[in-house]
Amino acid sequence: MMEELVGLGAVTLLGVLEQAYFSLQVIYARRKYSVSPPTTSGPPEFERIFRAQANCSEYFPIFITVLWTSGVFFSQGLSSVCGLLYLYGRFNYFRGYSESAQGRLAPLYFSAQILWVLIGFSSLGVFLTFCQVYLNVDLLQELCSALF
Amino acid sequence: MMEELVGLGAVTLLGVLEQAYFSLQVIYARRKYSVSPPTTSGPPEFERIFRAQANCSEYFPIFITVLWTSGVFFSQGLSSVCGLLYLYGRFNYFRGYSESAQGRLAPLYFSAQILWVLIGFSSLGVFLTFCQVYLNVDLLQELCSALF
Amino acid sequence: MMEELVGLGAVTLLGVLEQAYFSLQVIYARRKYSVSPPTTSGPPEFERIFRAQANCSEYFPIFITVLWTSGVFFSQGLSSVCGLLYLYGRFNYFRGYSESAQGRLAPLYFSAQILWVLIGFSSLGVFLTFCQVYLNVDLLQELCSALF
Repeated sequence: MMEELVGLGAVTLLGVLEQAYFSLQVIYARRKYSVSPPTTSGPPEFERIFRAQANCSEYFPIFITVLWTSGVFFSQGLSSVCGLLYLYGRFNYFRGYSESAQGRLAPLYFSAQILWVLIGFSSLGVFLTFCQVYLNVDLLQELCSALF
Repeated sequence: MMEELVGLGAVTLLGVLEQAYFSLQVIYARRKYSVSPPTTSGPPEFERIFRAQANCSEYFPIFITVLWTSGVFFSQGLSSVCGLLYLYGRFNYFRGYSESAQGRLAPLYFSAQILWVLIGFSSLGVFLTFCQVYLNVDLLQELCSALF
Repeated sequence: MMEELVGLGAVTLLGVLEQAYFSLQVIYARRKYSVSPPTTSGPPEFERIFRAQANCSEYFPIFITVLWTSGVFFSQGLSSVCGLLYLYGRFNYFRGYSESAQGRLAPLYFSAQILWVLIGFSSLGVFLTFCQVYLNVDLLQELCSALF
């Protein structure tokens, strides 16, 4: 069973490390712009970094959830690749947002699209598993034998 | 094993789609009330929608965690039903909060109660599994044979 | 399989209960300092409690993610112990932050260190599983036979 999960585990771990990196950036920014907790407002440079990290944190659980739903019910390989692309997009988003509010847009759209792909894979996987479990029909196999 | 998880997978997916819907509402509200990121304050109409989404996002990981703990250790069926009720409550919460701060209260209490039910199921499930694994006692079965 | 997971399930449940406790503290603080939603700013006493809860919520998904990655791929026992230490650290963090911004620091560093230990275990576990699954080498066993 582990062989069906270890790729997802590796992407998950990378995702956690990325979040740790973002959190450290906020701590550095707090020092640089002298914004002590609990304050969360300050110069726009600080607020952009703070918001970038907050946004990534907010999406992290959604990402982990669809990564695993898609990986368990559909395909570990495809989900892991999408996972890596998502993390790459989020890295660019964070860097872009740190520089300007405009710079966050392109990578934000990119990572949102990847999330939608993972949601699509999850839906397909859950639907096919439902058919297998409750209707005893393996739609994917039926389709393959119908085509070839 | 998949047949014990696919219901949880379906509810999880629905939860992700609901969060996506809430996020889109915040984007629309940002446009409507001209509140550009990284700003998060604005007219009360905007702030209510923003806080509603933030609150749902904050509870999303808790919800997914208890849904699966309850589903894996206690009962997939009961947990999935509670999951659907929770998502329904959150939808009403978001709609209510968008209209008035008062309007969020009833569905907030409702979804909190459902969370407590899921926490109760999880506790029961973890406790019974502990007894099975470490004491080699199947309490649920003992109880049934004692009663009938 | 359940016996490899029930410890993680128990720590997870404790984590959820701790989050519920923090949320209740924010609700009490809102009443005490008369800060009605959607407002999130108020007297420093309120803001510290609000930020403490927000910070714990933000780290909760990261914690659950590394707890399970470490527990599934490395060791349930060690991960569960680290999980309990983390929750203990977070409890002290919340209490400390409620009293003063300074009071949050020591337990914050402690819980961050525990997170890094869990990240280390996860990395080791994912790496060893990769070797087992794709290279067919059980490094842990090789190491043991080389040593003894």
